[in-house]
Amino acid sequence: MDLKLKKFFKGLFLKKNGHFEDLPSIKGLKISSLSANLYKHKREDLCFFYFKDGANHAGVFTKSRAAAECVKWNKLSKSNKIKALFVNTKNANALTGKQGFESLKKIQKKISNEFKAKYKDKDFYFASTGVIGERFPIEKIGKKIPDLLKKLKPTSPNIWIKAAKAIMTTDTIAKLSCKTFKIKNKKINIAGIAKGSGMIFPNMATMLGFIFTDLNISNQLLKTALKNNLDKTFNAISVDGDTSTNDMVLIFSTSKANNKKITNPKSKEFKIFESKLNQVMMSLAKQITIDGEGASKFIEIDVSGAKNKKDAKQIAFSIANSQLFKTAVAGEDPNWGRVLMAIGKSNINTSVNKINLKLGNQYIFKNGNILKSYRESLASKYMKGCEIKFSVGLGMGKSNFKAYTCDLTHKYISINADYRN
Amino acid sequence: MDLKLKKFFKGLFLKKNGHFEDLPSIKGLKISSLSANLYKHKREDLCFFYFKDGANHAGVFTKSRAAAECVKWNKLSKSNKIKALFVNTKNANALTGKQGFESLKKIQKKISNEFKAKYKDKDFYFASTGVIGERFPIEKIGKKIPDLLKKLKPTSPNIWIKAAKAIMTTDTIAKLSCKTFKIKNKKINIAGIAKGSGMIFPNMATMLGFIFTDLNISNQLLKTALKNNLDKTFNAISVDGDTSTNDMVLIFSTSKANNKKITNPKSKEFKIFESKLNQVMMSLAKQITIDGEGASKFIEIDVSGAKNKKDAKQIAFSIANSQLFKTAVAGEDPNWGRVLMAIGKSNINTSVNKINLKLGNQYIFKNGNILKSYRESLASKYMKGCEIKFSVGLGMGKSNFKAYTCDLTHKYISINADYRN
Repeated sequence: MDLKLKKFFKGLFLKKNGHFEDLPSIKGLKISSLSANLYKHKREDLCFFYFKDGANHAGVFTKSRAAAECVKWNKLSKSNKIKALFVNTKNANALTGKQGFESLKKIQKKISNEFKAKYKDKDFYFASTGVIGERFPIEKIGKKIPDLLKKLKPTSPNIWIKAAKAIMTTDTIAKLSCKTFKIKNKKINIAGIAKGSGMIFPNMATMLGFIFTDLNISNQLLKTALKNNLDKTFNAISVDGDTSTNDMVLIFSTSKANNKKITNPKSKEFKIFESKLNQVMMSLAKQITIDGEGASKFIEIDVSGAKNKKDAKQIAFSIANSQLFKTAVAGEDPNWGRVLMAIGKSNINTSVNKINLKLGNQYIFKNGNILKSYRESLASKYMKGCEIKFSVGLGMGKSNFKAYTCDLTHKYISINADYRN
Repeated sequence: MDLKLKKFFKGLFLKKNGHFEDLPSIKGLKISSLSANLYKHKREDLCFFYFKDGANHAGVFTKSRAAAECVKWNKLSKSNKIKALFVNTKNANALTGKQGFESLKKIQKKISNEFKAKYKDKDFYFASTGVIGERFPIEKIGKKIPDLLKKLKPTSPNIWIKAAKAIMTTDTIAKLSCKTFKIKNKKINIAGIAKGSGMIFPNMATMLGFIFTDLNISNQLLKTALKNNLDKTFNAISVDGDTSTNDMVLIFSTSKANNKKITNPKSKEFKIFESKLNQVMMSLAKQITIDGEGASKFIEIDVSGAKNKKDAKQIAFSIANSQLFKTAVAGEDPNWGRVLMAIGKSNINTSVNKINLKLGNQYIFKNGNILKSYRESLASKYMKGCEIKFSVGLGMGKSNFKAYTCDLTHKYISINADYRN
């Protein structure tokens, strides 16, 4: 990550000492991670999440038609209580066909044997991230499973950081977020980690996000809370407009907080959980965007006045995914013409005469004309900052959508033209 | 343009002496160009095409909702015989509102006065290319009109080259193409020039293309020939997925070839014209792609076996516009997984198990599996060439589409982060 942007990131997400807030312990969850030598250089590349007593769960997955084998696995019917989540990096297990899918069965069996337990396929989730279309390295991974299980430990701040690091690929920074709050006097914890830096464009989530809570809540309501928050968080971000084959966000609840089980979506308790979950998801989603491959700026596109949500979203991403817009921001050039260009190409019915455009707090364009009060010198100064916000008013209706993205820089090209090491 | 790619370009489009084939003279057309000092450095930035006896004509325009003032002007009803086409570079006359539109009226009036002719607005076409949202420089342009008219000359090879250069922006090479052929023993000429290098993604044509012929043909059939050829040529190319506010392709016929007027779309004569026009349009479209901003490779995406044309096109462009795919090609990496990723994210119903993928002549992926015969070393070698072809078989039907694009390089970023000079 760009040094200036790193400072901005720290200001937003880290404490004064430069560290994330300590993630809370989630009872009923143990984690381990280690290196199975999947990379040429030494780093941890396997991460295992184990719920001895099971966990309620929900997940959302990439809409890619070329979904990875782990996504296919996870979409099969699951047990009410899940036992484990197994994650590897370096190899995406995508387009690996039968070899990839059978490997997951082998991992499940090996773990069950080690535990002397009769776990089933449907007790397990899998997630992978890395290069697409390379044979899945089951031998290297299989060999390390006994060690991985031996290393399982209850969650602690350091264990969370190790896990967040073990799932990184081109990420330059680990991504963590948490909330602790009370529901009817019971302390509830939410802890989330995520990875993602390139191949980021929501058609669900475009990265890996794993969220854990000790709340006692039904599978159905976990799903509701996850889906309700998705559109404004993980589905509102984009790095390069490329939807991954492996995207998923999973949420697990161990129910160890001893609250009365939440089953009513209209209850006050559910609303509290939903809003706290939103904060964790929003934080992780923004962290991913700011750590976008090669990023030097964090960009917010705030589209309002659309006829409906779909239009607002399509226009926001037409801008957020425009190469020309993103390179102009990289060049610190307030070339707002490219914003209008991107609105124009979006295929949504708009009228230039009704459009208002604002950069930061300065209006540029109103009712089809450049404002006489617009000062390019001010705009140029603004563009030197790390956080760039364009607000677009369409004047067609009352719907809005905020998209988050980063700029397109030389470094993005370097990362993506020379990455297989 | 990248040196290696320039050599490739020359091999495709230039004669052994390094020049384009001489463009033929089109009787009834005069051209002039000069500098109105719109750029800081000296270069020609105005180009005027004049048909004293009028010309039949047809045009296709950007579908952008933020279309430039010249596009709006051109879409108003036109005379049967057009008199002039006026082109400027540096300023796109887009999002310039009333000032931009009124400027075109002023230019028309000034030219009519100079000619002491009673031309009407509907006798004129206008085209602009350059920065969006800057006030249209009518004063600088107006002053130069008398000189511009004085310089009018019949078309000759050099005049064509001067015109092609005068309409360039970030293009590194002028783009010209022509065909001479016979219809019922009458010699017919087609001459075309084009510009375009960035903001190239067809939603019509995404650049300026001007084509001239001396064929005697009705406006209606000119339009038919233009539209019939558009989808496979100008609408099959992409540099960055960004549709311009100013795109247009215009075709003019002076009727000076003295053939019997062509009015029947089923006639043999029309078919001949249409196929020759296709060659000129295809050549110009490919030239634009190869001269894509920062390009080092020319990429062809050949999608076949789609359910219908729309699906084939959407998948071809999902690949052709993928940042990750284009950077992998820039890095000379045969990362075919990114092709599958782009198919997967295209929103078209496909089945990985039916997909065949070929790089050049080597099959990589068939029926859901990587082929054992696939040799990455061979693929890596192939990727070092200038012309990269990926063929995708979807196994869903019989429709196909070929898209043309270029890679995404450091130079693209440089050009587009620092271009306002």
